[in-house]
Amino acid sequence: MPNREFLRKADERIPITRRWDVLPVALVKPVRDSAAWQGWRMEKIPTRKPLADRAFKNGDRFILDFGEELVGKLKLTLRSQRNFNDSPVRLRLLFAETPLEIAERNRRYTGTLSRAWIQDEIVTLDDMPQTYTLPRIYAMRYVFVEVIATPNRLVFEDIRFTARSAVRDLVPPLPHFSPEETELDRAAQRTLRNCMQGVLLDGPKRDRRLWLGDLRLEAQVNAVTFRRFDIIERSIYLLAAFPQENGGIPACVFDRPEPYDAKTFISDYAVLFPDLLWFHYEQTGNRELLKDLFPLAAKQFDLFRSFYRNGVAQQELPAWNFIDWCAELDRTTATQGCYLFGLRKLAKIARILKKFTTAKQLEQEALFLSTELKKQKFDPKKGLFVSGKKKQISCASQIWMILAEVVSGNDAKLLLEKMEHCKHIVKPVTPYLHHHLLEAYRISGEKEKMFRHLHLYWGTMIKKGMNVYPEVFVKENERLTPYGSDPRINSACHAWSCAPAYFLRIN
Amino acid sequence: MPNREFLRKADERIPITRRWDVLPVALVKPVRDSAAWQGWRMEKIPTRKPLADRAFKNGDRFILDFGEELVGKLKLTLRSQRNFNDSPVRLRLLFAETPLEIAERNRRYTGTLSRAWIQDEIVTLDDMPQTYTLPRIYAMRYVFVEVIATPNRLVFEDIRFTARSAVRDLVPPLPHFSPEETELDRAAQRTLRNCMQGVLLDGPKRDRRLWLGDLRLEAQVNAVTFRRFDIIERSIYLLAAFPQENGGIPACVFDRPEPYDAKTFISDYAVLFPDLLWFHYEQTGNRELLKDLFPLAAKQFDLFRSFYRNGVAQQELPAWNFIDWCAELDRTTATQGCYLFGLRKLAKIARILKKFTTAKQLEQEALFLSTELKKQKFDPKKGLFVSGKKKQISCASQIWMILAEVVSGNDAKLLLEKMEHCKHIVKPVTPYLHHHLLEAYRISGEKEKMFRHLHLYWGTMIKKGMNVYPEVFVKENERLTPYGSDPRINSACHAWSCAPAYFLRIN
Repeated sequence: MPNREFLRKADERIPITRRWDVLPVALVKPVRDSAAWQGWRMEKIPTRKPLADRAFKNGDRFILDFGEELVGKLKLTLRSQRNFNDSPVRLRLLFAETPLEIAERNRRYTGTLSRAWIQDEIVTLDDMPQTYTLPRIYAMRYVFVEVIATPNRLVFEDIRFTARSAVRDLVPPLPHFSPEETELDRAAQRTLRNCMQGVLLDGPKRDRRLWLGDLRLEAQVNAVTFRRFDIIERSIYLLAAFPQENGGIPACVFDRPEPYDAKTFISDYAVLFPDLLWFHYEQTGNRELLKDLFPLAAKQFDLFRSFYRNGVAQQELPAWNFIDWCAELDRTTATQGCYLFGLRKLAKIARILKKFTTAKQLEQEALFLSTELKKQKFDPKKGLFVSGKKKQISCASQIWMILAEVVSGNDAKLLLEKMEHCKHIVKPVTPYLHHHLLEAYRISGEKEKMFRHLHLYWGTMIKKGMNVYPEVFVKENERLTPYGSDPRINSACHAWSCAPAYFLRIN
Repeated sequence: MPNREFLRKADERIPITRRWDVLPVALVKPVRDSAAWQGWRMEKIPTRKPLADRAFKNGDRFILDFGEELVGKLKLTLRSQRNFNDSPVRLRLLFAETPLEIAERNRRYTGTLSRAWIQDEIVTLDDMPQTYTLPRIYAMRYVFVEVIATPNRLVFEDIRFTARSAVRDLVPPLPHFSPEETELDRAAQRTLRNCMQGVLLDGPKRDRRLWLGDLRLEAQVNAVTFRRFDIIERSIYLLAAFPQENGGIPACVFDRPEPYDAKTFISDYAVLFPDLLWFHYEQTGNRELLKDLFPLAAKQFDLFRSFYRNGVAQQELPAWNFIDWCAELDRTTATQGCYLFGLRKLAKIARILKKFTTAKQLEQEALFLSTELKKQKFDPKKGLFVSGKKKQISCASQIWMILAEVVSGNDAKLLLEKMEHCKHIVKPVTPYLHHHLLEAYRISGEKEKMFRHLHLYWGTMIKKGMNVYPEVFVKENERLTPYGSDPRINSACHAWSCAPAYFLRIN
C-alpha cells in the first residue's frame, strides 16, 4: 500500500506546466559528416519561399529544424491547394532528437527495448482545412514529414511546436563564462528543463520515469539554476510513497496515468537517498521533509548492514547494483563506497533531527567501514583501490572511495593521479559516473582537472553538434547503446547528464 | 456565393446522431472460398476463453467480427498483464467492410484513388491502463488488430464499437416476406442506415459525399422504411445551396468540416432533380420546398435545351453524363431519356405551383421529344433503341426510354423481352442502373420479372456473404473496381444500392 500522506504531499507540489510556441528555424537534410555525432549532421537547405507558400504532393517529404531540443506537441494547420478534399490526408511524421534517427529511419529496428519508443506516427485527417495538434508529447529538435496521400497538393499553412516544461527560461550564464562554457551551460540547462515535467523525468523521449539516482544529480543542478524545489520535493515524496515490502525505497516510479511503483530496486540508489535529503535541506532548510523521510532513509542501511557486519564483503550485494552502464564493471567496492557515503549523510541528518544516539552509532559504523575499506580494498603496490575477487581496477572504485572519504586530501589527489595514468582501467560510460568523477576532483581540490574533464567530456558533445546531453556518451563508440544494437533507442536528452551547469557554478 | 437561405434551411434539418455500443460476436480468420464474395470468407475461430481473459505479446494479432457492418468509432480498454508499463503500447488496426480487405492487407496498393481511404491506423498509447476511443469514424464489420509493441503482455479488457447513424433500428419485414426477402430487405436497410449520417452519404467508408443522383434513389427507400424526411430535405437544400455559375446544380457537395461545393456537375443527375422533388412532395406534401426549388430545377433544362431544339442530338452532351460506371457505354440515348423523364416531372411540379403556362410549355416539349426519340432512336428491325453514331445497343438505353415513357404498356414489355434476349448488349454494372432496371420492370407491369431480377442480382450478393450492398457488383468480375486495379478501394456499403427494401415494399 502506498503511503497516502506522502502521495498527498507529492500532489500538493504538482508544478504548473508552462507552454510556449516555437516555429521551425530551417528546412534541413541529413548529410554524412565524420566530425559530427554518430556521423550525421543536419544541413540547412536554402529556401526561396516560406513553407506556407509551397504545396506538396503525394510522396513529398521535408525535415524541419526547431533550433533546439524541445518537449511538447506539434500543431499543424493544413489546407489543400484547391479546396477539393475528396479523400483524407495521410502523413508520416518522425520526431527526432538526433540527425541519425531521421537519416537511418528506414533501418530495421534491432533494439531490445520496445519499438514503440521510436517517435513516429501515421496520421490520417479527414477534414481540410484543419488545425490539428497531435495528441502525444514528443522530445525533438527535428521533424520529418512525408505526405503519404493528399487529395490534391497540400499546403502546410503553419507548423509550430508547443513546448512544455515546468520552467521556460534558462538562467543567464555567469559573467566570467567563456563562450564555450556558456554553450556547455545552456545545453545542461536545456537538458534539465526538458526533463522537468510533472516529475523529474530521466529522459523525455525514452523511459520517461522518475529515477532516484538521477534525481540526486538533477537536484544539484536545479539548485544552481531553476531552483524549482517544488518539483524536487514532489519527486522525493513520490518515490518515498512506494516503499517495498522489506522497506526498500524504489529505484523509480511511473507518474502516469497515476503515480505507481515500478517495482525496481537499486542498492546504490537506495543508500544515496540520505545525500539527496541532506542536499535538499542545505538548499531549503526544509526540516519537515527531513523528519518525514529519515526513517525511510535509515531503513535502506538496515537492508544491507548484515553484509558489512564482519568488515567489508568481498562480493557484490545480492541486489541490482548500478554504478554505471558497463557490463564488465565489478561493482563491489564502488557499491560499498556508496553505502559509506550515504551513511555519513544519514548521520548528519540524525544530528539535525537531534537523534544524537543514532547519529553516534552511524558515525561509529562509518569510521569502522572506512578503516576496513582502506585496509581491504586498497592495493598499496598499485596505489589504487581494487574490486571483487579478480581485483578489478576501475575508475568507479576510485571515485567512490574518494566520495566516501576513505581517502582525502593529498591521498585523494594522488589516487586520482594514479587513476589517470593507469592503462588497464575500466572507464566510465555514462554521464552519471562522469558526474561523480567531477565531484571527486572537486572535493579533492583538483578544480583544474575538474574543468579539464568537463571540457573534454561534455565539450566534445557540444563540438559534435549536441544541444542537450545524452544518456550514454563514449567518444570511441558513438553508436553504443545499452539496449541491443540500435542507437535510435538511446535517449539524447537525459537529465542525469546535466552536470556542467552545476560544476561551472559552484566553487 | 452559396445560397444562405438554403444553407439555413439545411442547418435547421441537421439530424440528431444516435449512438449505440456493439460488442464483437466472434474471433474470425479469412479463408479462401470460391463461393464467397471475392474468394474470401471469414471463418469463426472456436475460442476456449473470452478475449478479456487472454494476453497478447509483440507480434500477436487477431480479427474481430462485429456481426454486421456498422459506422462509428472503436473503443479499446487496455491494460498490461503485470502493471509495469516501461514503454508505450503500439497497435496496428485495420477496419474492413469485406474479408478481402484484411486477407489481402499486405498487397501493394494499386488503386487510382487516394491510399488514405484504406482504413488502417498505427496507434501509440503512452499510458496503461487506458480506455481509448480512436478519433476517426470507420465503416466496418471486421477489425484486424496487431500488437506491434507492448511493455509486457497486453490485455484487451473491452473492445466495443460505438455505432452511429441518424437511425438505429431497422423497420420490421412485411408479414409476407420469405426468409430470403427478409435478408434482402435487412441488408438494404442496413446499407441505407449506415449512410444516414449528417447528410446522406454515398458510402461511409469511401467518398463520403452527398451525391444528387444517389440521393434520388435513397429518398425512395427512405420513404418506405425510416421515413427520415428531415435528412432528405437537408440534403436537397445543401445541394441547392451551391449552384454553379451557369445555374447548374452540383452533382455533389462535401459536408465537412463545413458544407462546400465539390465543383462537380453531372448532366443526368441535374435533369433528374425534379423527380427527386416530385417524389418528396408526394411523400410529404411539402409545397414550400417545391416552391423554393422549382426555379433551380427548371434552370437545369435551360442548360441543355439548345441541344434538343432541332429534334434529338446524335452526340453525347458536352458534360459529364454518368448513367452507369461502364467505360464502353454510349450514353447519348440514355441521357436524353433522363432529360425527358425529368421534364415530365418538372411539368407536374409547375402544375402544382399553378404555373400553368410553364407547365403547358414543358408538356409540349416533352411530347415533341418523346416523338422524336421514338422516331430517331428506335430500330424497328431490332426492336430496340440504339445510341450514338455506332448505334450501340445497351440496357441503359432501353431502361431510360421506358422510364421516360417513350414506350409504354405492351410496347415496353416487348422492349424488355427483346432486351433480355439480345446477346450483344452492354449490360448494367452498378446497382444504380440495376435500380432503374427494376423500376422499368415495375412501371411496365412486369412485377414477376422485377422480383426475379431482384433475387438474381441482390440475392446473389446475399448468397455470397454480403450484409450490405456495394457500390459495384458484377457477378462475372468480383474484383472489378472503377478506380484502378485494387478492389480494396471499393465501397462495400453504398446507399445507391439499397433498392430491395423499396421494390419489396411498393406495389
